[in-house]
Amino acid sequence: MSKMLEETRQQPEALARTLEQGLPTLHDLRIHFEGHRPRLVVLVARGTSDNAAQFGRYLIEITTRIPVSLAAPSILTLYESRLDLSGVLVVGISQSGESTDTNAVLEDARVRGALTVGITNEPSSTLAGIADFVLLARAGREESVAATKTYTCQLLALYLLAQALGGEISLDVLRWIPGWVEEVLELEERVGEIAERYTFMSHAVTVGRGLNYANALELGLKLMETCYVVTERFSSADLMHGPIALVEHAFPMFVFAPSGVTWPSISAVLDQLEELKAETLVITDEGNSEACVKPARLIQLPIEPGSCGGPRDLYTPIPYIVPAQLFAAQLAEIKGLNPDRPRLLHKVTRTM
Amino acid sequence: MSKMLEETRQQPEALARTLEQGLPTLHDLRIHFEGHRPRLVVLVARGTSDNAAQFGRYLIEITTRIPVSLAAPSILTLYESRLDLSGVLVVGISQSGESTDTNAVLEDARVRGALTVGITNEPSSTLAGIADFVLLARAGREESVAATKTYTCQLLALYLLAQALGGEISLDVLRWIPGWVEEVLELEERVGEIAERYTFMSHAVTVGRGLNYANALELGLKLMETCYVVTERFSSADLMHGPIALVEHAFPMFVFAPSGVTWPSISAVLDQLEELKAETLVITDEGNSEACVKPARLIQLPIEPGSCGGPRDLYTPIPYIVPAQLFAAQLAEIKGLNPDRPRLLHKVTRTM
Repeated sequence: MSKMLEETRQQPEALARTLEQGLPTLHDLRIHFEGHRPRLVVLVARGTSDNAAQFGRYLIEITTRIPVSLAAPSILTLYESRLDLSGVLVVGISQSGESTDTNAVLEDARVRGALTVGITNEPSSTLAGIADFVLLARAGREESVAATKTYTCQLLALYLLAQALGGEISLDVLRWIPGWVEEVLELEERVGEIAERYTFMSHAVTVGRGLNYANALELGLKLMETCYVVTERFSSADLMHGPIALVEHAFPMFVFAPSGVTWPSISAVLDQLEELKAETLVITDEGNSEACVKPARLIQLPIEPGSCGGPRDLYTPIPYIVPAQLFAAQLAEIKGLNPDRPRLLHKVTRTM
Repeated sequence: MSKMLEETRQQPEALARTLEQGLPTLHDLRIHFEGHRPRLVVLVARGTSDNAAQFGRYLIEITTRIPVSLAAPSILTLYESRLDLSGVLVVGISQSGESTDTNAVLEDARVRGALTVGITNEPSSTLAGIADFVLLARAGREESVAATKTYTCQLLALYLLAQALGGEISLDVLRWIPGWVEEVLELEERVGEIAERYTFMSHAVTVGRGLNYANALELGLKLMETCYVVTERFSSADLMHGPIALVEHAFPMFVFAPSGVTWPSISAVLDQLEELKAETLVITDEGNSEACVKPARLIQLPIEPGSCGGPRDLYTPIPYIVPAQLFAAQLAEIKGLNPDRPRLLHKVTRTM
């Protein structure tokens, strides 16, 4: 079995650890922010961590009303522009904590008076050394180059950060997430059967919206890195604004479809895809009965995260990425590839 | 001839008009910002205009040091979160001025005290009516669904905006741009010959960095909309951070390669692509002698925009997109498609 699949299965414990052991830092952050509410949050990351940052962007803006910017590191590292970051919170996200440009942005921000937070799997990393506060993703060592458990633990750490910033996020509901993931992992065999059908897939499009847009980015990245499938990734709004022209009969589409405020937009996309006779796989859950009557193929999570208060999709992103991870890991093996060692890639990327 | 190609050729006059007729608004904005430097700039757009916004993000952060955020409209329109936008400049960019969610974000921002600027081709549009200041892209009517001249005029308007915000941008150099574009347009036949080779291309990757990242996004969008080529789009940093695993023998790659601070990163990508025996087309200019000795196919602009002061790539994005437009418009015709009427698309997109 691949390390990727093994590490996908380790997520319930990793998430539970990240939550419980993050509570003291949550407490410290909350006290700090009481007197110093940031005027802007800047998130810095690359690769899978950058997808986690996309989630963080939606989560923080939705629950705290503080504007968020996703940093373009080259503005510092290549153009050497020093942004005015007074009163700003800068958050670096990196599995290894050794991403050179993420660290450069964080270091520069700290030197010039911004508050810095690091979200990383490695307590003794450079990132952890730079940041004023560290929220650890306690995923345990991740050996596969394709990140899985560190991604979901980063999402969990971002829930804690949003809560510290005043966001209405329930720790009680966060405590249910490891159990939900446990239930979703039971879909492994069924997802493997579905993946068989995609043996010859060479290109695809993934779609999400709002809080699950990050998952569309992450599934796409996994399909590219581990299965060498050319995958475009869109929010449902951006898809309909142009690239929908690509889609023809049997075009492989992967759509994240929780219930809640994004559902009408996603539902309209599904109807359009049905008309085009695309080959659509929908990831949804038992709480979204409307998705189940659509004629697309379905992975239905045996949980109802929408019934927990707040926006109905608020707690969906972690359980929703799990079937996508199971899909990519198994499709890679079906295709005869090794998802743990994609050609050319290493676990730590140094950006020039 | 397609409208898209015709409108691509109209850019020198459109750019000159946008510049000269934008000067009074530039003056008003400059006076306004003297007393009220924004603490944050939020850019809101969809589709091609969103690619222009990506350029604006780099341009403003590099030349003014004010942080920039690219808005996720669903945070307002679906999640109904009201961001704290006091002291913020919110800029809506839309060719038609009728993009529903861009307008919703701008309207909400204005009501709650943000300063708003609209960049649009249509002086009597809803967007122009909402915004406190309007910078008109004076492209003249654009009939092709695939935007060309409105994109470059939006870039030009963003230079004016950055200058009003205190950015070191030379109006004298901006005045050279229409002439440069005129010279680049003379490559039309040569670009058409190159496009012949790509008749059967079904997928591709486009790459840019920094100020030209927007052009990688825009070329990719054009290839998707007008040629139905599945195109992934990356900054050189993000490509090397994972998706490079996709690239195999004869994989079609399109790389924007100006001289300046992004060149070492782009150059490293070109070396890697050469090793992988990818099929690479490089867009560069006569000022970048190092690009010309790389073994890739080359479109070399007969200009030297790097010799004008500021970062060497500061004035490259407008002339650099022109060969890409010529390529997409001609490839669509070679493939027997109509670039003016992509299937399913309309000129004005209403987002739900």
